[in-house]
Amino acid sequence: MSLIVQKFGGTSVASVAHIENVARRILTSRKEGHDVVVVVSAMGDDTDKLVALAEEVDFRDCRAQREMDVLLASGEQVTIALLSMMLMKLGCKAKSFTGTQARIQTDAVHTRARILNIDIASLKVQIDQGIIPVVAGFQGRDSEDNITTLGRGGSDTTAVALAAILEVDECQIYTDVEGVFTTDPRVVEGACRLDVITFEEMLELASQGSRILHSRAVEFASKYQVPLRVLSSFKDGPGTLITNEGQSMEQPLISGIAFTRDEAKLTILGVKDIPGIASAILGPISEANIMVDMIVQNVADDMSTDFTFTVRREDYDQALKILENIAQKIGAKEVKGNNKIAKLSMVGVGMRSHAGVASKMFRVLADESINIQMISTSEIKISVVINEKYLELAARALHSAFDLSGASLDEPTTTD
Amino acid sequence: MSLIVQKFGGTSVASVAHIENVARRILTSRKEGHDVVVVVSAMGDDTDKLVALAEEVDFRDCRAQREMDVLLASGEQVTIALLSMMLMKLGCKAKSFTGTQARIQTDAVHTRARILNIDIASLKVQIDQGIIPVVAGFQGRDSEDNITTLGRGGSDTTAVALAAILEVDECQIYTDVEGVFTTDPRVVEGACRLDVITFEEMLELASQGSRILHSRAVEFASKYQVPLRVLSSFKDGPGTLITNEGQSMEQPLISGIAFTRDEAKLTILGVKDIPGIASAILGPISEANIMVDMIVQNVADDMSTDFTFTVRREDYDQALKILENIAQKIGAKEVKGNNKIAKLSMVGVGMRSHAGVASKMFRVLADESINIQMISTSEIKISVVINEKYLELAARALHSAFDLSGASLDEPTTTD
Repeated sequence: MSLIVQKFGGTSVASVAHIENVARRILTSRKEGHDVVVVVSAMGDDTDKLVALAEEVDFRDCRAQREMDVLLASGEQVTIALLSMMLMKLGCKAKSFTGTQARIQTDAVHTRARILNIDIASLKVQIDQGIIPVVAGFQGRDSEDNITTLGRGGSDTTAVALAAILEVDECQIYTDVEGVFTTDPRVVEGACRLDVITFEEMLELASQGSRILHSRAVEFASKYQVPLRVLSSFKDGPGTLITNEGQSMEQPLISGIAFTRDEAKLTILGVKDIPGIASAILGPISEANIMVDMIVQNVADDMSTDFTFTVRREDYDQALKILENIAQKIGAKEVKGNNKIAKLSMVGVGMRSHAGVASKMFRVLADESINIQMISTSEIKISVVINEKYLELAARALHSAFDLSGASLDEPTTTD
Repeated sequence: MSLIVQKFGGTSVASVAHIENVARRILTSRKEGHDVVVVVSAMGDDTDKLVALAEEVDFRDCRAQREMDVLLASGEQVTIALLSMMLMKLGCKAKSFTGTQARIQTDAVHTRARILNIDIASLKVQIDQGIIPVVAGFQGRDSEDNITTLGRGGSDTTAVALAAILEVDECQIYTDVEGVFTTDPRVVEGACRLDVITFEEMLELASQGSRILHSRAVEFASKYQVPLRVLSSFKDGPGTLITNEGQSMEQPLISGIAFTRDEAKLTILGVKDIPGIASAILGPISEANIMVDMIVQNVADDMSTDFTFTVRREDYDQALKILENIAQKIGAKEVKGNNKIAKLSMVGVGMRSHAGVASKMFRVLADESINIQMISTSEIKISVVINEKYLELAARALHSAFDLSGASLDEPTTTD
């Protein structure tokens, strides 16, 4: 008998029929002898609908954020009630908990609160009585009983936080894919599901555009050593276990290839190469709340330098305008931009002990005549920026060259 | 400077545009120097949509009621957030309160809880700081922090309860009509708005089919002497003040005529006239949760009696089936039913001191050749059951005969 947290996202609970499917999955786990704590998101696109209502009010002010949280938190409240009813209908004891009722204590930063603590006493009482607690993800309360929400990926974070504090045996994240794949199966035919992946790899994949799990939840799970499993709500299967390095026999060189088109590149040319110039350029960008991803600085000649960075594509126009202002102020030669780029990353803990991954990657791209515009590396990741029209070609070529279709050297894992 | 509670129902907050209209009304009251506490319902038919989701789950069990309350309470949560944002956008300080946050303590009877107490300390702090508290109607919490709802007319009840405990100067119920009318203006052209009506009269009108205010809220207001005003959200005007007898100079004989088609009549003939026979007949009806309204028993001859009662039209088929069973058991002669009836009531505190209202009413109906099938009276009300096809004719004839078009003898009232 083990204790597991099962989290079901919006697409998994998009209708009452979906909710019945979810309830049956939970029942199966119960029949297998597990105690289950359930975390759910708002139904389908209900959160988007609530956001649309707030946009119609159109009050852009920080004071609106408290009310935004009250508004959005109503979404999961609907799901917990319906799922609890459905579980009872199918013969299970169940009870819903809003974030407030589950005593998910957060800081007071509305719309992106952080969980400080969860008082699990009340949930434990339910579990001991054989009642399935159905907890609203994404939401909590601050010390003054205001409703807070956790921001993007919040329900994943709720699930992992509960799993950590309840010291569960596994935290299962049910989603609309069968697990973590070596790359996007819609782009590369041979993409295959990974049985196991490390937290580090998953973090790199998550932040590099694999939208299965929010990186915050993965970080949380890594920090508190919560075994995390990604599974499909719609198809049976073992999913992908995200765990510590060392649990599997041998690390593959490369675990996966992630990519995103959600990027744009900006270059400021002929900048005086003096101390403080980077912050003079990036300061106004970050003040405008524009996230900068890759940054590259080249020395052009003795006196001046070129400075290139990437931003989200939706921020491109605004960033370009700001950069042109900066260029005038600091007397730069020219500003260039390109929003037809894509970023592709290869991720694998095996890179640590294997040289030559980068050079092989660059050779494969060169063989396909794909020009690399920017390069960025970490210990377990190599990212390149290329023209977006070559993205699929690059992904397929690398997937094949690194033999990822038969990549999984890991043992099959079980949910024991 | 006075303190008022303003309650806006579902049709008044059916869209963001409606919510803006409501916010402007609240602002007007503020500019007139009033402190305002706002109570709102769920937007438009949102509650119906939530009920439809629960019906899709289709778990008919008392254990579902706790979850039903969690589900339904999400509706007002959306409105309080949007209205608070809108008030802030228009330059007012505002803050939303769920039933739990407003500390509306109820008993634990889910889906039809009763308010036990409201801890208004937190609301008072807001009012003192010039912040408008926007409170979710219809909902509260029990002593174990479960979410409860108050049942039909719950938001009106919330408003009146808050008004009573805050000792406000007036509780204003905004709705889609301009006030309480002498009768339904859609049926009788000369129907006119009443400036003042007593709690008693309003209670009789509310329970007799004038759907403006739920009788529970009126009872509450009467008990705690809360001056209640019904106004239109859409048109300016003084509305109707519901207050104690004696505030107006002279009581009109008749305040209004209410009617409903939502009735059906059942008769069981040839029942042995022995003690306990009424409960033998009505017991199984009430056990099936069918509400019985009027009851009439006639002695047919020395040995047997006829027994007639009315139920809601939607319960007619079920009630008929039950009654046929009973008839067999107790050896009654026959069961008859009629679901093409209507009930019409004349209400007025003036009846107390004026004889002859009943006989005049019966004569007016007789003059129109309308047969009276049942009669029921109270101190300030006379109800008759007639064939529903004569309903409009009867209402117009009585409205005219009792001169209700120019009925209002009361002084014009102001909102001071």
